[in-house]
Amino acid sequence: MTAQKILLLVLDGIADRPCEVLDGKTPLQAAATPVLDRLAQESVCGIMDTIAPGIRPGSDTAHLSLLGYPPERYYTGRGPLEAEGCGIRMEAGMIGFRGNFGSLDSNGTIIDRRAGRIASTAPFCDAIREGVDLSSFGVELFIEPGAGHRAAVAFRGEGLGANVTSNDPKHEHLPPLPIRPMTDAGSDLHTAEVANEFLRQSQEILFDHPLNKQRIADGLLPANIVLIRGAGIMGRFEPFPEKWKITGSVISAAALISGIGSAVGLEPVQVPGITGSADSDLNAKIAYTEKELDRKDFVLLNIKGADEFGHDGKPLLKRDFIEVIDSALAPLLEWHDIIIAICADHTTPCSVMDHSGDPVPIIIRGPGVRVDSVAAFDELCTAGGGLSRIRGGDLMPILVDLINRSEKYGA
Amino acid sequence: MTAQKILLLVLDGIADRPCEVLDGKTPLQAAATPVLDRLAQESVCGIMDTIAPGIRPGSDTAHLSLLGYPPERYYTGRGPLEAEGCGIRMEAGMIGFRGNFGSLDSNGTIIDRRAGRIASTAPFCDAIREGVDLSSFGVELFIEPGAGHRAAVAFRGEGLGANVTSNDPKHEHLPPLPIRPMTDAGSDLHTAEVANEFLRQSQEILFDHPLNKQRIADGLLPANIVLIRGAGIMGRFEPFPEKWKITGSVISAAALISGIGSAVGLEPVQVPGITGSADSDLNAKIAYTEKELDRKDFVLLNIKGADEFGHDGKPLLKRDFIEVIDSALAPLLEWHDIIIAICADHTTPCSVMDHSGDPVPIIIRGPGVRVDSVAAFDELCTAGGGLSRIRGGDLMPILVDLINRSEKYGA
Repeated sequence: MTAQKILLLVLDGIADRPCEVLDGKTPLQAAATPVLDRLAQESVCGIMDTIAPGIRPGSDTAHLSLLGYPPERYYTGRGPLEAEGCGIRMEAGMIGFRGNFGSLDSNGTIIDRRAGRIASTAPFCDAIREGVDLSSFGVELFIEPGAGHRAAVAFRGEGLGANVTSNDPKHEHLPPLPIRPMTDAGSDLHTAEVANEFLRQSQEILFDHPLNKQRIADGLLPANIVLIRGAGIMGRFEPFPEKWKITGSVISAAALISGIGSAVGLEPVQVPGITGSADSDLNAKIAYTEKELDRKDFVLLNIKGADEFGHDGKPLLKRDFIEVIDSALAPLLEWHDIIIAICADHTTPCSVMDHSGDPVPIIIRGPGVRVDSVAAFDELCTAGGGLSRIRGGDLMPILVDLINRSEKYGA
Repeated sequence: MTAQKILLLVLDGIADRPCEVLDGKTPLQAAATPVLDRLAQESVCGIMDTIAPGIRPGSDTAHLSLLGYPPERYYTGRGPLEAEGCGIRMEAGMIGFRGNFGSLDSNGTIIDRRAGRIASTAPFCDAIREGVDLSSFGVELFIEPGAGHRAAVAFRGEGLGANVTSNDPKHEHLPPLPIRPMTDAGSDLHTAEVANEFLRQSQEILFDHPLNKQRIADGLLPANIVLIRGAGIMGRFEPFPEKWKITGSVISAAALISGIGSAVGLEPVQVPGITGSADSDLNAKIAYTEKELDRKDFVLLNIKGADEFGHDGKPLLKRDFIEVIDSALAPLLEWHDIIIAICADHTTPCSVMDHSGDPVPIIIRGPGVRVDSVAAFDELCTAGGGLSRIRGGDLMPILVDLINRSEKYGA
């Protein structure tokens, strides 16, 4: 029997280095993970450099690589991908920024870079979208809210460059910075002028917005400035269904991951109750994944949370949350007729509190797989498995081949 | 804890193939190596193709690859690197040669290609440097002694090519050959003319040199001809401290290895009593390495000797010298706060008496490393370790990532 469907499950940042507080084990080794271990026992296992050995991937470059889009060719910065993930339909050539709302006082000093961690910026984005006019620059503005205080901004127009600085001074009690071109190119100067005019007009709108007047009256911080960063030009992606000859969806609470999926041609699926943190409704994610696998050939499912504990340097909490993830994955034990690949996108060592270039575990389970003798899902056990050491760019060809959709090269 | 320093220890040519006289074991398997085995037990282990699987590396191309300079892009011949190692400050575009002094009889026939293995050629190099005038060609001459009968020669000037033959006929009782261009290019013709004029003038100086008259009177062979080979144009290397964001030194008795280190921007460190052979003072090498690691982020330490026994086809002596190396490495067991990588640059099978393309063992030990269950340092045990199979070009990114100096690619 040959499987017809593929689940690529990315356990974001789940891999780690040995932790002293865990007696030299990694959180993944220290956690009780009967489900993942059972899956590993039924898999071909290995380790994987999502980009290349020793290269510290971002979540964005790692996911591009895993989906078969070499980042050195396709990565143009986080802004346009996050904008796509916030629901802006980014066309090739558009300029995208990540952003968030902050609070200015009457002197023009930033008193909070997250506007008191406001729950939603949707009404402010609506007001900016309606009120800001960049037509004198020949530019169209797009702005959409992200989670909480976050938002994404994009410009569409001729001759826009992406090499511009941020207006975020990175620290409170400073005024916002002017956006500046980072090169002498006219296109970058153009974008800087457009961005500064966007900021000027949006700030006026935000200062006058009744919701901000209400927030101040309620003793809350106003959301009266947009801080934008990570400018990038949207690239042109060979559509996933053409590249791999399969249809697919992406399920992730992170706008960045949804955006990457959407950019390459996966359908982003909204799942209620998912947060990208430890309080996410993982059961809902699994249930929606099962439903998507009925409709599509491929699902990219990203489960975050473990990554956050790595960034925070909390090995015990990371271990405990890995056990929560493990329980939530129990239904996968019964999914015998699909190819399931489980990996991390990168290592996030608690000792580093950021991503590192260590390889990640990878297991592949399903019909036709050459099951090896690896007994557990962790960074070391899987290294002894039948996959040996592969690269992120190898994964999609391996998976597509396992469902017999790869094209023969030669005769 | 994250380490701050890296030691890259290259045990030159220590890897081998099974030897009949060792009951099918390699010298490394047959040797008692308690120190290396203990280090392997505390490491993540694997095998490594210093260039690529099946490619037979030279020591030069192997070391370039290990330092992160792909030889297909950076290697321009051994001459310029050895010249750099002999102390000539090779600038990009200069032409370098390896060389040695030989003995001519009065008929112009080479009677010894190594001038009776003369101990030092320094006074002859001095005389040539002072006496030879290539200014009519617009060329400046550099010449420096190497170990024993060896020396290095370099030319600086406009329009010099590197595709020229050697004057060494490779056998005694033949006259020296004229240097010839190997292409029709004017630059190669120019270099051949310069080299032949250099040889003509230097021969005159050497014939008249009082030390040679004295040697003949003493019944010794004169050093009255320079035999040059391995012409190459010096390349442009991205400096190591810029490329990897770390400072470094190189410790090696071999001019070639020091030259490669110096060419890429490592500081060559002179250690008294080291020879590159089995009589080298290995304890001094280790002591100097420890001192360098206080000053620098990175040390490349090359220990030769085992390689020579491979070239000579002596498995028993190779095994015995490996045990000498092992003892000398005992201090490393106490170096717990640095990343130590130990490998060979290539395999030198006693059965081949030259380098081969077999992979070499590689172990990496230090803070943050995912220690696997490999119990011994040899060609086979390490193959089952947590590194699996990597390439030489992967090593520096992995090491730099372990000391947290790698840059994140993406966000």
